[in-house]
Amino acid sequence: MLHFGAAYYTEYMPVDRLQIDLDLMRDAGFTVIRVGESVWSTWEPRDGQFDVDWLAPVLDGAHTRGIGVVLGTPTYAVPPWLQHKVPEIAAEIGTGRRVAWGARQEIDITHPAYLFHAERVIRRVLARYAPHPAVIGYQLDNEPGLHVLHNAQVFARFVARLRAAYGDVDTLNDRWGLTHWSHRLAEWDELWPPDGNLVPQYDLAWRRFQAELTTEFVDWQAGIVREYARPDQFLTTCVDYARPAVDDVAVAAGLDLASANIYYAARDGLAASTEGSLDWPPSGAWSLYYNADRAWSTKQAPYLVTETNATSVGPAWLNQPGYDGQWRQVGWALVSRGARSVQYWHWHTLHHGPEAYWGGILPHSLVPDRVYEQVAALGGDLRAAGDALDGLRPDADVAFVHSLPSKWAFEFAPPLSQAHGGPDHAAYERITSAFYRGWWTAGAQVRFVHGGELSRYPVVVAAGLYVADDATLELLRAYAEAGGHLVLGPRTGYADADGRVRSALAPPGFASAAGVSYTEYANVSALPVRATAGSPLALPPDARGTAWVDGLRSAGATPLAVYDDPHYGRWPAVTTAAYGAGRITCVGTVPSPSLAEALARWATPAPVSGLPAAKPVHTTSARLADGRRAWFVHNWSATGVRAPVPFEAVDLLTGDQVGGDLDLGAWDVRVLVSR
Amino acid sequence: MLHFGAAYYTEYMPVDRLQIDLDLMRDAGFTVIRVGESVWSTWEPRDGQFDVDWLAPVLDGAHTRGIGVVLGTPTYAVPPWLQHKVPEIAAEIGTGRRVAWGARQEIDITHPAYLFHAERVIRRVLARYAPHPAVIGYQLDNEPGLHVLHNAQVFARFVARLRAAYGDVDTLNDRWGLTHWSHRLAEWDELWPPDGNLVPQYDLAWRRFQAELTTEFVDWQAGIVREYARPDQFLTTCVDYARPAVDDVAVAAGLDLASANIYYAARDGLAASTEGSLDWPPSGAWSLYYNADRAWSTKQAPYLVTETNATSVGPAWLNQPGYDGQWRQVGWALVSRGARSVQYWHWHTLHHGPEAYWGGILPHSLVPDRVYEQVAALGGDLRAAGDALDGLRPDADVAFVHSLPSKWAFEFAPPLSQAHGGPDHAAYERITSAFYRGWWTAGAQVRFVHGGELSRYPVVVAAGLYVADDATLELLRAYAEAGGHLVLGPRTGYADADGRVRSALAPPGFASAAGVSYTEYANVSALPVRATAGSPLALPPDARGTAWVDGLRSAGATPLAVYDDPHYGRWPAVTTAAYGAGRITCVGTVPSPSLAEALARWATPAPVSGLPAAKPVHTTSARLADGRRAWFVHNWSATGVRAPVPFEAVDLLTGDQVGGDLDLGAWDVRVLVSR
Amino acid sequence: MLHFGAAYYTEYMPVDRLQIDLDLMRDAGFTVIRVGESVWSTWEPRDGQFDVDWLAPVLDGAHTRGIGVVLGTPTYAVPPWLQHKVPEIAAEIGTGRRVAWGARQEIDITHPAYLFHAERVIRRVLARYAPHPAVIGYQLDNEPGLHVLHNAQVFARFVARLRAAYGDVDTLNDRWGLTHWSHRLAEWDELWPPDGNLVPQYDLAWRRFQAELTTEFVDWQAGIVREYARPDQFLTTCVDYARPAVDDVAVAAGLDLASANIYYAARDGLAASTEGSLDWPPSGAWSLYYNADRAWSTKQAPYLVTETNATSVGPAWLNQPGYDGQWRQVGWALVSRGARSVQYWHWHTLHHGPEAYWGGILPHSLVPDRVYEQVAALGGDLRAAGDALDGLRPDADVAFVHSLPSKWAFEFAPPLSQAHGGPDHAAYERITSAFYRGWWTAGAQVRFVHGGELSRYPVVVAAGLYVADDATLELLRAYAEAGGHLVLGPRTGYADADGRVRSALAPPGFASAAGVSYTEYANVSALPVRATAGSPLALPPDARGTAWVDGLRSAGATPLAVYDDPHYGRWPAVTTAAYGAGRITCVGTVPSPSLAEALARWATPAPVSGLPAAKPVHTTSARLADGRRAWFVHNWSATGVRAPVPFEAVDLLTGDQVGGDLDLGAWDVRVLVSR
Repeated sequence: MLHFGAAYYTEYMPVDRLQIDLDLMRDAGFTVIRVGESVWSTWEPRDGQFDVDWLAPVLDGAHTRGIGVVLGTPTYAVPPWLQHKVPEIAAEIGTGRRVAWGARQEIDITHPAYLFHAERVIRRVLARYAPHPAVIGYQLDNEPGLHVLHNAQVFARFVARLRAAYGDVDTLNDRWGLTHWSHRLAEWDELWPPDGNLVPQYDLAWRRFQAELTTEFVDWQAGIVREYARPDQFLTTCVDYARPAVDDVAVAAGLDLASANIYYAARDGLAASTEGSLDWPPSGAWSLYYNADRAWSTKQAPYLVTETNATSVGPAWLNQPGYDGQWRQVGWALVSRGARSVQYWHWHTLHHGPEAYWGGILPHSLVPDRVYEQVAALGGDLRAAGDALDGLRPDADVAFVHSLPSKWAFEFAPPLSQAHGGPDHAAYERITSAFYRGWWTAGAQVRFVHGGELSRYPVVVAAGLYVADDATLELLRAYAEAGGHLVLGPRTGYADADGRVRSALAPPGFASAAGVSYTEYANVSALPVRATAGSPLALPPDARGTAWVDGLRSAGATPLAVYDDPHYGRWPAVTTAAYGAGRITCVGTVPSPSLAEALARWATPAPVSGLPAAKPVHTTSARLADGRRAWFVHNWSATGVRAPVPFEAVDLLTGDQVGGDLDLGAWDVRVLVSR
Repeated sequence: MLHFGAAYYTEYMPVDRLQIDLDLMRDAGFTVIRVGESVWSTWEPRDGQFDVDWLAPVLDGAHTRGIGVVLGTPTYAVPPWLQHKVPEIAAEIGTGRRVAWGARQEIDITHPAYLFHAERVIRRVLARYAPHPAVIGYQLDNEPGLHVLHNAQVFARFVARLRAAYGDVDTLNDRWGLTHWSHRLAEWDELWPPDGNLVPQYDLAWRRFQAELTTEFVDWQAGIVREYARPDQFLTTCVDYARPAVDDVAVAAGLDLASANIYYAARDGLAASTEGSLDWPPSGAWSLYYNADRAWSTKQAPYLVTETNATSVGPAWLNQPGYDGQWRQVGWALVSRGARSVQYWHWHTLHHGPEAYWGGILPHSLVPDRVYEQVAALGGDLRAAGDALDGLRPDADVAFVHSLPSKWAFEFAPPLSQAHGGPDHAAYERITSAFYRGWWTAGAQVRFVHGGELSRYPVVVAAGLYVADDATLELLRAYAEAGGHLVLGPRTGYADADGRVRSALAPPGFASAAGVSYTEYANVSALPVRATAGSPLALPPDARGTAWVDGLRSAGATPLAVYDDPHYGRWPAVTTAAYGAGRITCVGTVPSPSLAEALARWATPAPVSGLPAAKPVHTTSARLADGRRAWFVHNWSATGVRAPVPFEAVDLLTGDQVGGDLDLGAWDVRVLVSR
Repeated sequence: MLHFGAAYYTEYMPVDRLQIDLDLMRDAGFTVIRVGESVWSTWEPRDGQFDVDWLAPVLDGAHTRGIGVVLGTPTYAVPPWLQHKVPEIAAEIGTGRRVAWGARQEIDITHPAYLFHAERVIRRVLARYAPHPAVIGYQLDNEPGLHVLHNAQVFARFVARLRAAYGDVDTLNDRWGLTHWSHRLAEWDELWPPDGNLVPQYDLAWRRFQAELTTEFVDWQAGIVREYARPDQFLTTCVDYARPAVDDVAVAAGLDLASANIYYAARDGLAASTEGSLDWPPSGAWSLYYNADRAWSTKQAPYLVTETNATSVGPAWLNQPGYDGQWRQVGWALVSRGARSVQYWHWHTLHHGPEAYWGGILPHSLVPDRVYEQVAALGGDLRAAGDALDGLRPDADVAFVHSLPSKWAFEFAPPLSQAHGGPDHAAYERITSAFYRGWWTAGAQVRFVHGGELSRYPVVVAAGLYVADDATLELLRAYAEAGGHLVLGPRTGYADADGRVRSALAPPGFASAAGVSYTEYANVSALPVRATAGSPLALPPDARGTAWVDGLRSAGATPLAVYDDPHYGRWPAVTTAAYGAGRITCVGTVPSPSLAEALARWATPAPVSGLPAAKPVHTTSARLADGRRAWFVHNWSATGVRAPVPFEAVDLLTGDQVGGDLDLGAWDVRVLVSR
């Protein structure tokens, strides 16, 4: 059954109202709460003095009401006594620059003194509560990987890791190109610290290393927790995909379930007509699906949404509660993409501290109101759905190759600029979003992959895949050769696994197979793009190539679209060429929404959902465990619409038969299943 | 008699021209100069070597010409020898981050070494000049409170103060909500320094403490100076209201007179049609009155304007001398709001240093020109007015409750965002300005209050009054119950005196009395607002609710205006309800200029001035000591206008009878008195 | 013969292809390469272990092909072993704030330990290669003066220099106006470090001192290199005019040739219709000439262009390869203004490091393509020109007085603001550009001067010449008196050599001679300007005075243009007055492009080139050694144009006779010589 609930902090409540809260939760359809992860100083008020009994009434009360509990290890927020006792555990965000105390996660998570204390408190809490019947699983730490750590011992380990990886300094000198600007090392201890580093190859290694530290830390916690956990209890940790030092796949590899915190811009931020972006908070309805699809890809399996908008998300000056209906919409959208829980952050809005305006389900007055009602409506839906959606597996029309190293490389030296001319450090997201948005708008469903088996996907998109080893390029080429349709976007394959620019003719690894090459590229604002004669692309007048132009020169490929520009017009914007049993399409620019949609409609003419995409209606679909198919039909707009349903189905929540036209209200969603 | 003059720095002059300057001052109508406050290194060129005689010719020359002198204590700028001798007196603007030497006020004003030297030089200067007949008063230090001090000894005193205030850490843990994020203290010495603090309740206490340090410092100086001052000499210090660490009311409590430095954006910045803001330099004619009314409120009494624009204000790249007439306008506007002096900063434009383009009355050539003439014209006016305006008490139609703690709380965690989405740290000023501007435009006059007796005011506005203790809320409620019209604006009463969000139904303390409540609020850009049927509000089509929306739900209150919006339209923008013998109106948004003006015209239909407000004409009025009334009629525009005067009066400056229509030139002002 | 080539880094190549590269260079017309300046760690991999033989094949191969070599001293990038051995050689960009290692030039170039090691490596490299026949000259260091150094020993030398210059602290107190804000010094050791300094006079001395350190450093290197250099070898160093700590004239005084790195915004950035600016990368075709004319002025002699755009310039997110033809255009523009070499940076695009997207002539694939072809086309031109242009001396219609101290003063306290109200630290360039652009557009040619003999120029422009000693003002006045036409722009002469504002009536030194004075000035956005009746200025409707207005009051001068504004209309925007045998024109504002062009067309009605200026066609001209005149006719646009040539000439490259009309293609240039 789908889990539904919220993080619950009885310890933050200004008054004792545990039973009232739990009753309200039960009435709203809650089946799960998350507890205890933020209050080490409550578990252990003084060094070695533990107080672990306070949570028992919460677990007891939850259990009584059939609500499961995810228990958090409280390691992400160290108590003042520990900061005071061992100040050197403070994270350094530059060499010698300690993060000032006052928030949380300002810790060098590799420091032995921190690890000693963290282990002690974990063991105390686990020993006390692991046997409790309410506990269904554990969250280890919370959104790990906030800081790139510059502490001296961390840097020393980095050098040791380089030595292990490269063997000798001359190999490093060569792979990083350190002849440039006189950076050649004679000895390992001459490596400069990262603060002033300008070498992209160095930075990429540094970022990989930082993510490894986070994985190591979570693995270490998992080892401890598994000593206590019952077999029916799961281990997870919630991932914030924007954290700089986390590799979600690696972290989740040692856990039972992936968990993601998926927030979004509510209100018009959820409109299908909003172009949106992945910038915080992510906006555009597509961005919700993008992040949900990222979460599935973490383990290529169902995942928990451990946090999502209850009311407002963010600081005191950004209060943006959603419109009526949006809670149901978001919940079903997440479920449709494989979430097996929807949990809000958090139950009640706080009265103190930095998060007093990150809204909960209950307002400051603690009186249930519109938000509670909206949440409860979704709770009612899920209760009505029962276990019908267990084992749901979201459909996919296309695979997108995702690459954290490419993202890291672009954060350091982005290929795109912002409107004011400065670097766009979110260039990776901008490029991949442009393609994702196109397929989403075209009604196609995306599976993010990190390599692996591709042949099951009719189309594979590799855009912005800057850092790629030879094997990955070969995998993609072979995929096309074997019959797949490979769509290459800008920058793919341009650098090797070390982040070195390849000297092979670009697009490296594909110039021959794709029948196209380039030796130049340029940043542009936006260029009109029109279809070539006979092109299968249906381009509207507002189709544009934005931000980037590869000077594509066809050597056998068919140009599908060209720039309408005196200079850039010599180069096609899009080419395609048969290759082996398949096809390689090369997109030399960051496509505007309408260009991307046209590409997607051509490459994916018949999305598996079987429902035509027409903004603002958007449909996702999935296979259920019993072989039936489910459809999740959303109206991402403030106006009611009628959507054609070209088959017969059953409304999962009402049991009504559906066929022909489906009426959706403003910000509405319907869940259909095949008969 | 009104004082008129400037700060005079003979010591900065490139040539000796004392007598020329004093003659020019006399000719311009000067009655006062301020001297000596900036040059400790001239008073005491070396440690313990004093040179206090240089000022005597200035005092003698001033006295000869009937010009009084305000003598400054030179403590805000320490000499290089003292910086060099005791570098630890440097202010720290973060823990361990000393302000670099090179400006002024870069001192930890609580450091004993600084106090030792400051006291010594004060005593030398005072002993020498207190007896001089020219000296009419003293300015202690200068614009105190520039820095929030992070020096170790300051932080130690802060902890001691918390201990004294809260008694034990558990009380602090509770009042500041330190369970959150594991911040509970076990011992006082575990308190983290302010640098990394994110807890609003901590910051509010920290800001209060910083203001107390400034008060303590000024009080300490006052004690020394009073040992020398004659009974006929006053003590004051000039306040810059934008300083982060000054509570004007507390500082002035130990002094004889309040003083304010009131600068403004000249040129079109003074136009009535300029929406303006309190951002530096304050713009919009209303902003001049806002600051003048703040100055009156410091002691609820006449005050000195110790500094105002001579020519340009600000750095080298902002040279904005006013238009002809604006000097007279500003001078009379200040006088009309209770200023008993108008003093320019400063006499001559400097040839060196960081302030060489903060223009004086004399240009760099020292040849009197347009600015001198404009200033002298005002001097002539004031001479003509003689002592007619002594004892003037500005009229007030409405009281605005002002709250520094609310301002500080909003600087830390503002409820409003800027256009680009970032926090608007000036949210307090933005909210209060929106209401002030409305009443100003409606021709009503404002008295800022900090609590106290309210019954004399027909209307009291409490907007943005976020931090308020229970007594304040009760005072306001009782005011309405007893017959007053209380106008509540956004955020009022939302937090208690510690800055904790209240859990009472909002608006806390008023939900029942005002017949309205809210549990949600949202940030918006701007929403159209229209009057309800039968509403007394006369709303033009451009009326808007901006920045903030409270989800007001009426429980007995009458909606006066609603949002024209599919989502927010469910909630009224303005409600009103009779309460006891009075009325409570609740405004759930930051009103646009026209919405605010409509509110004011409804709440204050007949301003006490008796002159109809019609932009660009604006009138203030006052009671004189002899019981007569005075009117100050301004044309805040570049075009001549005719203003109706519905009564008979006398032009104070010409003696002409006035009645019917009054012709005003561009940037003109007329001063009328009743017969 | 003109030199043509590029910087060549065989040591950065991913594969050995020296002979291929040199062949390609020869084919493209190369006659020079620059080598070896960036790789100290290759020359000396470990402390005292030298490897100096690796370059020999490059020199041998170049010599074989008739390509000369400029050998660089490798001192701007210290090796890791040296950073590690003597960390205190790190430059401090604030007191105690060391630049983090990781780039280059992060060195205190005055530190003895650095100098010791630098000398040793220079001697080793020079001893090995000075005799090599390929070596035609030396580049000392590279773009020196990147950092303003705050190291303690540097500051100590600064104080010593002040002591030497001013003698005693009282003189300094007086000249810097240190009475202000209590900054008077009693002893030299009380001087505050520059970090917190706000005194402009201090900053000006500090900047002068920093430039002197750079000169001292280059002179020191020159002394060493001359011990090895053959008489036929030249010494130079490449100057980046935007570096904060370099005085190009002083640095070049000890060298044989001036060298400049002149980059530009390609594509539409080179259009004549682009208003442009000197901000990086400089834009507007005029900006290319501005910088070229600066380079000539360094020694008032021919110079090398050591670096210019090969492809993209700048970081990863700014890839802007030029349009076809622009390489030829730029090359000929530089030559026309006295460049005796055109060298690209660099030969091949790098595969590693921070400069991987600063494009070379060869792309990452190392396969010659469009850029190589464009470069080779210019190489062909130059080969065709042969030695015809040897001894070329660019023509000049007008002298512009250039002043680094004024630039430095404006960087610290600029008189202009940016659009958002903040300081425009590039105010000097903005003011001088406004005038330069006007003369350029009018077809006139500019010679930058730093004083000296002016009588040869019919017009001298002194705009933004803020810091000027009495002698300079007298030189300019005498120039006009003797018959010249002196055009004064805003701020000229306003401060003396110490940066003190003069108290003389403004414009200081000219008020009487120019028949005009001002005591006020104001910052404005833009004011319409119209010609007075009978004015010789032909002002179009879009003529504007921008950013600044001097309140000019005529005392005998004739107003030529006035502001169309109710307030500023009282003051003329431009005046002119006969003076002695000449004339002084005073421009009280920063002229808009059309106002500046009108001024130039009036002051320089018949430019020496003899070809009428009509955008987008622009012509420069020069005298050749044999007395012939050369013309360089550019079409700075994407559209072919026909330009009238009112005389007969010969096309230097084709030998064709030219006369009447000249057809130019898009981005085209023609080189004509008189018969």
